[in-house]
Amino acid sequence: MKKITIHSPATIANLVCGFDILGLCLEEPYDRMELKMNDSGKLMIKSLGAHSLPEDPLQNTAGVALLELMAQVSPETGFDLTITKNIKPGSGLGSSAASSTGAVVAANHLLSNRFSREECVRFAMQGEKLASGVKHADNVSPGIYGGITLIRSIFPLDIVPVDYPPLFVTVVHPQIEIKTSDARQILRQQVQLRDAIRQWGNIAGLVTGLMRGDYALIGRSLEDVIIEPVRSILIPHFDEIKKAAREAGVLGGGIAGSGPSLFMLSADRATAAQAEEAITAIYNRIGLEHHSYVTTINPQGCRIISES
Amino acid sequence: MKKITIHSPATIANLVCGFDILGLCLEEPYDRMELKMNDSGKLMIKSLGAHSLPEDPLQNTAGVALLELMAQVSPETGFDLTITKNIKPGSGLGSSAASSTGAVVAANHLLSNRFSREECVRFAMQGEKLASGVKHADNVSPGIYGGITLIRSIFPLDIVPVDYPPLFVTVVHPQIEIKTSDARQILRQQVQLRDAIRQWGNIAGLVTGLMRGDYALIGRSLEDVIIEPVRSILIPHFDEIKKAAREAGVLGGGIAGSGPSLFMLSADRATAAQAEEAITAIYNRIGLEHHSYVTTINPQGCRIISES
Repeated sequence: MKKITIHSPATIANLVCGFDILGLCLEEPYDRMELKMNDSGKLMIKSLGAHSLPEDPLQNTAGVALLELMAQVSPETGFDLTITKNIKPGSGLGSSAASSTGAVVAANHLLSNRFSREECVRFAMQGEKLASGVKHADNVSPGIYGGITLIRSIFPLDIVPVDYPPLFVTVVHPQIEIKTSDARQILRQQVQLRDAIRQWGNIAGLVTGLMRGDYALIGRSLEDVIIEPVRSILIPHFDEIKKAAREAGVLGGGIAGSGPSLFMLSADRATAAQAEEAITAIYNRIGLEHHSYVTTINPQGCRIISES
Repeated sequence: MKKITIHSPATIANLVCGFDILGLCLEEPYDRMELKMNDSGKLMIKSLGAHSLPEDPLQNTAGVALLELMAQVSPETGFDLTITKNIKPGSGLGSSAASSTGAVVAANHLLSNRFSREECVRFAMQGEKLASGVKHADNVSPGIYGGITLIRSIFPLDIVPVDYPPLFVTVVHPQIEIKTSDARQILRQQVQLRDAIRQWGNIAGLVTGLMRGDYALIGRSLEDVIIEPVRSILIPHFDEIKKAAREAGVLGGGIAGSGPSLFMLSADRATAAQAEEAITAIYNRIGLEHHSYVTTINPQGCRIISES
């Protein structure tokens, strides 16, 4: 019975101006997953760790993703999956995507990588559909490709890895709950053309800045005039936090995914640590429980730890 | 009396998905301009060539741009400007921008380049305001910087040159008139969020494809779901032309600026010539007068031909 252990990392979708099209993969936090292949034709899931998940495959984002993959292989192929969930569901850090990508990448490895990365994204997107009702790919793509990915289009699926310079990421997760579906519902379905134009200037600037390693351009482009003004009202002290982080020297940042976590990008680790200090000081002052990380971009995505 | 002759090239704004933020500079067609500096403190304009222009500086796009520049230099500085206009006004090929950029670049040269390229863009934008009522920069920026430019933001002005691979441009100008102000007026002031998302995916894809020299990605990204569906109704046989050009092998293309000219991008000259043939065949069949060019991207912008 072949067996594999994998670390499946947190991811940040949207990246300020890149709503629904950009995502990046973090070094930390990550889930730990163990997958064993057998010939039962069945999928069994066990949930461990700080956050318990449904063990019914049809109610579990890793489950529905694996079932989608299993439909493409011989019917006797079965799996035992154990998920040690460290990335809190509803954090905005791609917890559901970490489950589905980790399971799919692990299964694909046990099946001698017969599926392409793009096919793995398609399987994993089933998990996103279960989690949020929308088959989005801006968490699962960076989870599978690593680094920063552009999802140019969902239909047809077109994933483009984007080059980037060294970046350090401050992540702060206030312990409040925002449902992805709620965060989506408050968005206006129509936007002003002039705002859309400003947004696409920023997106083009951000991608150009990332590819060229132009930190100043990255900083100028990290502006969101469409989504952030609406969603930031759900996040306590958002404006004050952004101001404090800018003063600490970050390039910019905003809401991670649909929140409530926040992230800030910096050109060096010391600045990222100063931003963490500045933000946690605000949450300590108002007595809001939170977790924070200073981490980097994970260039690889899901990482195989051991196999036998 | 110092004197300079300059070629000021046509430019294409918008570049399909990059409405108001992207522009490119063409090798052909171009205006020829002659500028003499004197100590009269006055600006005199003479219009030559196929298309006559107002000679009152306040009614001439080169005039208002030069007056803006002259306000920043010693009051006795004066100019005699002769414009030989080859780029037909109202073609969608940046005729007004060619006047203002050529005049500003020539004057700046005679003044020992005391102004930066960005300052030159600011002067030239006065011409755009006169021509269309809007101080846009997506024609004047490529005219001054050359190549392909991103205007990330107008307020504050932020111009980013974008790298690109060899590209050949088919330009077809049907002899009908569309006023920029009319082409602007028919646009909806609100767009669907889902269309905006699709558009920013394409913009990010286009910029990534250009910088990476990935022709296939450029081709996939040359899609406009917001402006083109509205404006293309003003252009005879638009869909048929696009189809014929794609069949000839172009990467993609669309409306040049606010039209009525069309442009198509190709990876090689032979394809660009085939597209020209295919498009002109359609206009010949329906008996619509037109001009066409097969040209390349001008990496330099306005070009000094002689000085004395």
